[in-house]
Amino acid sequence: MTVSPLDSAILGPLVSDSATAELFSDEAAIKSMLEFEAALAVVQERLQLIPCGAAEKIVAAAASLEPDCKLLGAGSIAAGHPVAALVSQLRGAAVPAGDYVHWGATAQDTVDTALVMRLAVALDRFDARLKGLIEVLSGQANRCREYIMAGRTRTQHAVPLSFGLKVAGWLLPLARHRRRLAELGPRALTVQFGGAAGTLSVFGSRGVEVMEGLAAELGLETPPAPWHSQRDGLIELASWLSLVTGTLAKMGQDLALLAQTELGEASDGSAGHSSTMPHKSNPVHSEILVAVGRANANLLSSMHQAAIHEHERSGSAWTLEWLTLPQMAVLTGASLRLGTSVAQSLKADRGRMQRNIERSRGVLTAEAAAVSLAKRLPLAESRRIVADASRRARESGEELTAILERELGTDLDWTALRDPANWLGSAAAFIERTIEAASARQERALRLPRLEWTRGRE
Amino acid sequence: MTVSPLDSAILGPLVSDSATAELFSDEAAIKSMLEFEAALAVVQERLQLIPCGAAEKIVAAAASLEPDCKLLGAGSIAAGHPVAALVSQLRGAAVPAGDYVHWGATAQDTVDTALVMRLAVALDRFDARLKGLIEVLSGQANRCREYIMAGRTRTQHAVPLSFGLKVAGWLLPLARHRRRLAELGPRALTVQFGGAAGTLSVFGSRGVEVMEGLAAELGLETPPAPWHSQRDGLIELASWLSLVTGTLAKMGQDLALLAQTELGEASDGSAGHSSTMPHKSNPVHSEILVAVGRANANLLSSMHQAAIHEHERSGSAWTLEWLTLPQMAVLTGASLRLGTSVAQSLKADRGRMQRNIERSRGVLTAEAAAVSLAKRLPLAESRRIVADASRRARESGEELTAILERELGTDLDWTALRDPANWLGSAAAFIERTIEAASARQERALRLPRLEWTRGRE
Amino acid sequence: MTVSPLDSAILGPLVSDSATAELFSDEAAIKSMLEFEAALAVVQERLQLIPCGAAEKIVAAAASLEPDCKLLGAGSIAAGHPVAALVSQLRGAAVPAGDYVHWGATAQDTVDTALVMRLAVALDRFDARLKGLIEVLSGQANRCREYIMAGRTRTQHAVPLSFGLKVAGWLLPLARHRRRLAELGPRALTVQFGGAAGTLSVFGSRGVEVMEGLAAELGLETPPAPWHSQRDGLIELASWLSLVTGTLAKMGQDLALLAQTELGEASDGSAGHSSTMPHKSNPVHSEILVAVGRANANLLSSMHQAAIHEHERSGSAWTLEWLTLPQMAVLTGASLRLGTSVAQSLKADRGRMQRNIERSRGVLTAEAAAVSLAKRLPLAESRRIVADASRRARESGEELTAILERELGTDLDWTALRDPANWLGSAAAFIERTIEAASARQERALRLPRLEWTRGRE
Amino acid sequence: MTVSPLDSAILGPLVSDSATAELFSDEAAIKSMLEFEAALAVVQERLQLIPCGAAEKIVAAAASLEPDCKLLGAGSIAAGHPVAALVSQLRGAAVPAGDYVHWGATAQDTVDTALVMRLAVALDRFDARLKGLIEVLSGQANRCREYIMAGRTRTQHAVPLSFGLKVAGWLLPLARHRRRLAELGPRALTVQFGGAAGTLSVFGSRGVEVMEGLAAELGLETPPAPWHSQRDGLIELASWLSLVTGTLAKMGQDLALLAQTELGEASDGSAGHSSTMPHKSNPVHSEILVAVGRANANLLSSMHQAAIHEHERSGSAWTLEWLTLPQMAVLTGASLRLGTSVAQSLKADRGRMQRNIERSRGVLTAEAAAVSLAKRLPLAESRRIVADASRRARESGEELTAILERELGTDLDWTALRDPANWLGSAAAFIERTIEAASARQERALRLPRLEWTRGRE
Repeated sequence: MTVSPLDSAILGPLVSDSATAELFSDEAAIKSMLEFEAALAVVQERLQLIPCGAAEKIVAAAASLEPDCKLLGAGSIAAGHPVAALVSQLRGAAVPAGDYVHWGATAQDTVDTALVMRLAVALDRFDARLKGLIEVLSGQANRCREYIMAGRTRTQHAVPLSFGLKVAGWLLPLARHRRRLAELGPRALTVQFGGAAGTLSVFGSRGVEVMEGLAAELGLETPPAPWHSQRDGLIELASWLSLVTGTLAKMGQDLALLAQTELGEASDGSAGHSSTMPHKSNPVHSEILVAVGRANANLLSSMHQAAIHEHERSGSAWTLEWLTLPQMAVLTGASLRLGTSVAQSLKADRGRMQRNIERSRGVLTAEAAAVSLAKRLPLAESRRIVADASRRARESGEELTAILERELGTDLDWTALRDPANWLGSAAAFIERTIEAASARQERALRLPRLEWTRGRE
Repeated sequence: MTVSPLDSAILGPLVSDSATAELFSDEAAIKSMLEFEAALAVVQERLQLIPCGAAEKIVAAAASLEPDCKLLGAGSIAAGHPVAALVSQLRGAAVPAGDYVHWGATAQDTVDTALVMRLAVALDRFDARLKGLIEVLSGQANRCREYIMAGRTRTQHAVPLSFGLKVAGWLLPLARHRRRLAELGPRALTVQFGGAAGTLSVFGSRGVEVMEGLAAELGLETPPAPWHSQRDGLIELASWLSLVTGTLAKMGQDLALLAQTELGEASDGSAGHSSTMPHKSNPVHSEILVAVGRANANLLSSMHQAAIHEHERSGSAWTLEWLTLPQMAVLTGASLRLGTSVAQSLKADRGRMQRNIERSRGVLTAEAAAVSLAKRLPLAESRRIVADASRRARESGEELTAILERELGTDLDWTALRDPANWLGSAAAFIERTIEAASARQERALRLPRLEWTRGRE
Repeated sequence: MTVSPLDSAILGPLVSDSATAELFSDEAAIKSMLEFEAALAVVQERLQLIPCGAAEKIVAAAASLEPDCKLLGAGSIAAGHPVAALVSQLRGAAVPAGDYVHWGATAQDTVDTALVMRLAVALDRFDARLKGLIEVLSGQANRCREYIMAGRTRTQHAVPLSFGLKVAGWLLPLARHRRRLAELGPRALTVQFGGAAGTLSVFGSRGVEVMEGLAAELGLETPPAPWHSQRDGLIELASWLSLVTGTLAKMGQDLALLAQTELGEASDGSAGHSSTMPHKSNPVHSEILVAVGRANANLLSSMHQAAIHEHERSGSAWTLEWLTLPQMAVLTGASLRLGTSVAQSLKADRGRMQRNIERSRGVLTAEAAAVSLAKRLPLAESRRIVADASRRARESGEELTAILERELGTDLDWTALRDPANWLGSAAAFIERTIEAASARQERALRLPRLEWTRGRE
Repeated sequence: MTVSPLDSAILGPLVSDSATAELFSDEAAIKSMLEFEAALAVVQERLQLIPCGAAEKIVAAAASLEPDCKLLGAGSIAAGHPVAALVSQLRGAAVPAGDYVHWGATAQDTVDTALVMRLAVALDRFDARLKGLIEVLSGQANRCREYIMAGRTRTQHAVPLSFGLKVAGWLLPLARHRRRLAELGPRALTVQFGGAAGTLSVFGSRGVEVMEGLAAELGLETPPAPWHSQRDGLIELASWLSLVTGTLAKMGQDLALLAQTELGEASDGSAGHSSTMPHKSNPVHSEILVAVGRANANLLSSMHQAAIHEHERSGSAWTLEWLTLPQMAVLTGASLRLGTSVAQSLKADRGRMQRNIERSRGVLTAEAAAVSLAKRLPLAESRRIVADASRRARESGEELTAILERELGTDLDWTALRDPANWLGSAAAFIERTIEAASARQERALRLPRLEWTRGRE
C-alpha cells in the first residue's frame, strides 16, 4: 500500500496501468506544460506578437529544461500550482527571450491544456483497447453461442441461456462506449487559453487569433470561448471513464460469480493463489474489475462537484479535479488492461454448465412447461400446476418434467420440453445483432490531435 | 420536510418541479405500465401471436383499470416489484383475454420500458427548457456586454470582465448539453423487452420481430439486444442530468456570490425573506441551484454503482436505480425551472460593478500596467514594480495607477490604462462566439418517441 | 415509482418504513415545528421575557393550528423555508399574543430543533430494533453453531465454517452500533437555538439561559454554542445510519449468495415470486438490504459535503441536508425492518451445506491436510503436494484425501482429516464471544429526550 | 500532476502531508507486514506452537529483509495481494525456521493488522495536531472576541457578530472530534487475526489464545472475533476522517470568502501569487482546505460501499478499501497541517470589518431596531417599518437608523441602537463556553497501542 496503490511498486502491477500512469507522472506533467509554453511561443512569433527569434530560444529551453522539482513543490505551496515556478525557471533558461515565455497566458491555461494533451493520448489508447476488446469478446460470443447454461435472475435459475449471449451482453455497451468517445472527444479535447480571467486581456482584439493558432499548433479543437470555469468537457469525459469501468465491472462480477466453487462454469484465467490454502484458484482479476468499477463510480461525484466553480476561477474546484481525474483515468486504463486479459483468458466449462442445469431438476424449463401447458389449460392454472410441481421437484430431487409427465400424461412432447436448447428464444439472433452492432464502423472516429508536441516532433 | 422534499407540499414548491414529478408519481407509473401491456397486446395480435380480439379487450381493460394500490404494495413486498400484482389485476379485468396479458414479457420489461416512456417526456421538456434558457441567457449576455465588472479568480479581483461575458460563460455549456441530449437520446430511449432472462424464450425465433413491433408501436428505438442487465443507456442519461444541474449550480454559485452585501452586483430576483430580519433579501433560488447541483452530483454515483448487475438480473442494482433516478430527474426539472426564473429575473447593478472596481484601488488593471511597462522595462522588473505598488495601494488606499504615474513619470497613457473598458481583450468576441454557438441548429435534434401511449391516443 | 419510492404507495411497502417515514411527513414536520414554538413561549414566559399569559395562548394555538399548506409552500419559495409562513399563521392564531411567537428565534432554530426532536424518536426506535435484532441473531447463531458449511473466500471454498459463525459475523457489528449510538446521541440530539446569526442577539445577556431552558423543556441536550453552521452532530449521525445499513447489506449479500440455485444453503423467507417464471423463489428482501446499503453509503457523501457552510448560514448546504438526511433515516428504518424479518425467517439447509462440501471433493480440508502433512514433510513440499492433488481432485472428481491417502500411505488419520467438523478451529469460541459481547449491557444507554412535545403531553 | 497528487513531488507539498504519507509508502507497508510476521512468531514460540528458536530467526530475518519489490508486484498480480510473495521471501531468509513464518495466518491478517499498526500512528499524530489546533484557535477566538463584524446568513449581512465567535465556531467541533477519536480508537485499532476464513483453523482450540497474545504483543485491542469481513471499525474511522476535513473545509470556506477583495476582513497567510497578475494575494491554503474536505466527503462513500463483503472475504470490497482509505488519511493529515498553518497565520482586519458594516448602511442593526420599536408598536408593524426603511437605506445610501430616527422621533436611544457592539447577544458567553468545552480534558484519551514493532524496539 502507498498513498495511492496506483503509484505503488507492489500493488500497482495489480490495480494500476503503467501505460496510462506514465501520462500522469510528474515528468509527463512537466513535459507537457513546457510543450504548451513552447507551442505558445511558436504561435505568438508567427503572429508577430513576440520578437522574431524568441520562439526558437523558448522551444530550445523548453526541450532541454530539467526543472528543479523542489522549487516546483515550493512554488505550489506559494501559488496553489507549480506553473509560476516552472515559468520562472523556463524564463531563466530562455534568456534573452525569457520575457516572452507564458506571454498573455495564465497558470490555468498551462495546466489545463497540458492535461488535455495527455488525456488525448490516453483516450486514443483507450479507444484502441476498446476496439481490441470488442474483437476478443465478439470471438468468444461467437465461439460459445451454443454453450447452453442457466440464465440466472435474482440469483435463481430462470430460463436457458447460452454463454455466448452472456458474453454478448458484456460486449453490447462497448461499441456504444466507442461511439460516445467519438462524440465527446471534440468537446473535451479543446485548448484552454483565456489569460488572467478568460478575456485574453493582454492581446487586445487578437486573442481569438492566438487561441486558434495555439489549438492548430497543438492539434486540439478551438472552443467558442475559454472553459477555465466551465468544466463540462472534462466532467463528461470522467462520466465516460466510469461508464467504461462500470461495464467491465459487470463482466467481472459475472465471472467472479461463475467462478464460485459450486458453479465453476467459467474461469478468468487469473488463478489467484492463496497465502494459506494450497487448493485455491481465486478469480482475482474479475474481483479487481469490480473494485475499480466501484471506485470510479464514486470518484465521478467529485468531478461533478467540481463543476461548481466560483466566478472566473475556483482554487477549490480546480484542485478537487486534480485529486480525482488522474486516478479515474488510470483506473480505466487498468480496467481495460485487466478486462482484455480476462476476455482473452476466458475459459468456459460447458460440462459444468450442463451439470448445473441438471442439478436444478428441470426448473430451467418451467416457464416453457407452463407455456406449453397453457395451450391446453388456462394460463393461470398451468402456472399453478408448474409452480406446485417445481416445489415438489426441489424437495424430492425428482425432475420437474418427469413429475409433470407422470401427472399430466403424454400428449406433450416432453422430450423436447426437457431440452433447454429448445428454449433459447432469440439468443442466437441477439448474439448476431450484438456482434454486428459492435463491429460497425464508428460513424465519427475519435479525431485525435496532432500531438507532435507530446509525442515528439520529427 | 417529508421523506423526500420532492414529494412535499411545503418544500416541493421550492425544490421540486411538479411537471417532472408528475411523471414519476404512482399514478403515472401505473398508467405507463398498463400502456406497455396494452401496446404489447396490440403488437402480438398484429403478429398473430395471440388470438384476434384479445388486444382490444386488453387495451380497454388497461385504459380503465384503477388498480388497488394496497394490492400492488403487497405485491411489491412479495415479488420485489409491483408488476405481478398489476398484471394479475389486469388479467382479471381483461377476461376472457386475461391469459394474453403480459405474454412472454417479464416484470423488468414492463418497469423499464414504462420508465423510458416517461423519461422520453421528461427529456423532451428538459430540451425545451434548455432551449428557452439559452434564449434568455443569450439576450442577457448581449444586453450586458458592456457592463464592466471585476473578473475574479480565487476570490480576488483579477482583470476587467464584462457581465455579458460572465453570462456567456453560463450559456456556453447549455448548447453542448442539448447536443449531448440529441446524441444520447436514441441510446437511452430504447424499448426493453427480453422476457424471463433476455432471450424472449416464449417466442421461439420470433422474438426480435415482437421487440421491433413493440418499439415501433411505442415510438421508441430498438436496441440490438435487451438491456435488462446492461444499463449504460440510463447511466449515461443520469450523467447528463448531473451535467445540466452542475452548470446551473455554477450559475447559482456566481449569483449568490454577486448578491453578497458587499458586492451587490446582481440579483436573482428571489428576494428571500428572513423569518427574523426585516432587511434581508436572500438569493434563495441561486442557493437552491447549488444545493440541487451538489445533490445530483452525488446521486449520480449510485447510478454508476448500479451498473454492476449480477448475471441476467440483480434485484439489488435494479432497486438502487429506483431509489436514485427519479429524484435526479425531478431535481433536474427543478433546476431548469429555477434556472430559467433566475435568468429571466436577473438584474445587474452596473453602478455597483463600477464602484466595486473603484474600491480595489485600480488593481484590476495591474496586469495591464505591468504589460504596458514591459514595453520599457524587463517584464520581471515591471511585474515587481507593479506588485510593490499594488501592495502600497492596498495599504494606503491610493489608486494604483496614480502611484505608478507619480513614480514612473508620464510617458505612458495613464488615463487609458486606468479605464478597465480598455482591457477587455476578447470579451466581446467570446460573447459573440458563445451566443452563435448556442443558437446553432442542433445537428441531430432529439428524436422523440411517438408517445401516443403516454400522451393519450387520439 | 414516485419521485421517492419511500413515499410511494406501491413501492413503499418494499423499500420504505412507515414508522420512520411518518416522522418525516409534512404533518410531523409541521407539528414538531409548532411544538418548538410552543415550548419556546413556555420557557420565555417562565423567564419573564414575554408577558404572563402569552405562552398559554401560543401553546393552545400551536396545538390546534391546521396550517394552510399552500401558503407554506408559497412561503418556501419566497424564503427558502416554510418557517416564516408558518410563524405568520401561528401569530394570527395566537392573537393577542402573536407578537411573542418565535420571539428571538430564527427559521433555522425552528427547522433544526424540530428535526432533532423527530430524529430522537427515530433513534430510539432504531436502538430498540437493533436490540431486537441482536437477540434474534444471537439465537440463530447459537442454534446453528454446529451447522458445518464451507467457508468461502474470494468466491472459493476455503476451510470449514459453521453457519452459526457466519451469523455471529453479522451480529458482531450490531452491538458496536448500539454503543456508537449511545455515544453520538448526546452530540446529535441537542437543541439548536441561536437567533438570527447565532448570537441570540435579541436576548442581551440572557441568551444562554433561554437556550438551556428550551433544551430542558424539550428534553434535549444543551450545546456549548449554537450549531447552525457546524453540522458535525448530524453528519456523525448520518455516518452511523450508513454504518448500520452497511452491516445489514453485508448480511443481505451473504444471504442472496447462499440462496443461489447452486448453493441453496439458506433462505431469507422472502420467497419472491416472478411475474413469468412459476418456479422462482427469489431472495428479494436480502437484495433490498443490499440496495439500501449502497444507497445510504452514497447519500452519506452529500451530508459530508453539507458540512461546508458559508459563514453563519448557507442556504445551499442546509437545503442539501434536507434532500438527504430524511431518506437516509427512512432507508435505515427499512433496513432494520427487513433485516429483522429476514433474521427471524432465516432457514438454513444443513443438508445442502453438507452436500455442497462434498461436491468440492474435499478441498475444504486441503489446508488441514497440508498442515497435517507438514508434521512429516517441509511445509513447502507439503503444500505443493496438496495443491497438486487438489488440482487432480477437481479434474477427476475423486476426493482429495482419497488421493492423498493412496499416494502417501496410511500413517495419518485420514478419517479425521476428512471430517470438516474437526477443523473448525475457534469457531465455537468466536460465536460465544460474539454473543456475549452483543448482549453486554451498553455502558451508556441512549439517553433520550423527554419528548412530551413530540409524543404528546399528558 | 501524478496519478495521485499526494505522491507527487510538485503538488504533494501543497495537497499532501509527508508525515502521514510516509506511513502509507511501500516501504512502510512492507516494514509493518514484516513486523506483523515477526510478532506472530514471537507469540507462537511463547505459546509453544512453533519450535524454540524459530522466532529469533524470523524476527532477525524480518528486521533485515529487503524484499524484491518486482517479485512483490508480480505476486500481487497472481494472488491479488503481495503477502504470499513477501512471506515466501521471508521464509527463504528465515531458514531453517522458514516453515514457521506466517503460521496459521492468512494474507488478510497480515495486510489488515499492518494497516492498523500504521493507522494507530497516524491517529496519534492527528490527535496531537487537533490538540494543537484547538489551542491556536482558542487563542485566536479569545484575542478577537471584540472584533465586531457582520454576521452573514445566506450571503447577506444579518446581525452583528464578533470575529472571536466566528473562530469559536470553527473550534466548536474540534473537541468533539477528539472525543470521537477516543471512542472509536479502541474499535478501529484491533488486531485482525482469523486464518484462512476466520476460524483460526490451524490452531484447534488455541486460536483465541494466539489472537490475544498477538494483540498484546502489538499493543492492539483484541476483538471478540476476527473482522476480516466486518469492516465497521475502519469505516467508522474513515467517517471520522471526513468529519475532521469537513470542519476544516468550513473554516477554509469562511476564510476564502473573508479574503474576497470586497471583504478583505481576514487573511489566511497563504498570500498566493499569480502567474500573471502581479497584485494578487490568493487565499490558496483556505481553498485547498475546501478541496480536501470535498474530496474526503466523497471518498468516504467508497469505504461505506466496501462494507458489503461477500462471505468470508471479498477481493472486490477489500481492494476498494486500498484504493480509498490511504488517500483519506493523507488528505486528513494535509488538512490538519494546512489548517494549523492557516490558524496560526490568521490575520483579522478589524478596520475592514468596521468599514464593511458601515457600508451596509446600518442594516446590521435592523433586527435590533425592529425589536426596540416593538416595545412601542405591534411587532408586525415595527418589522414592516424597518423593512421599508431598510429598502430605502439600500437605495439612497442613507443610514437605516438615521431614516428611522428622522421619521419616528427621538424617544429611542438611537445612538445605542446604531452601535453593533450593543447587539452581540450571547457572543461572549458562547466564545467562553466553546473555549472551555474545547479545553476540557478528554474523558477517555486515545489509548494508543505500544507500537514497539512499528516505532522500533528498544
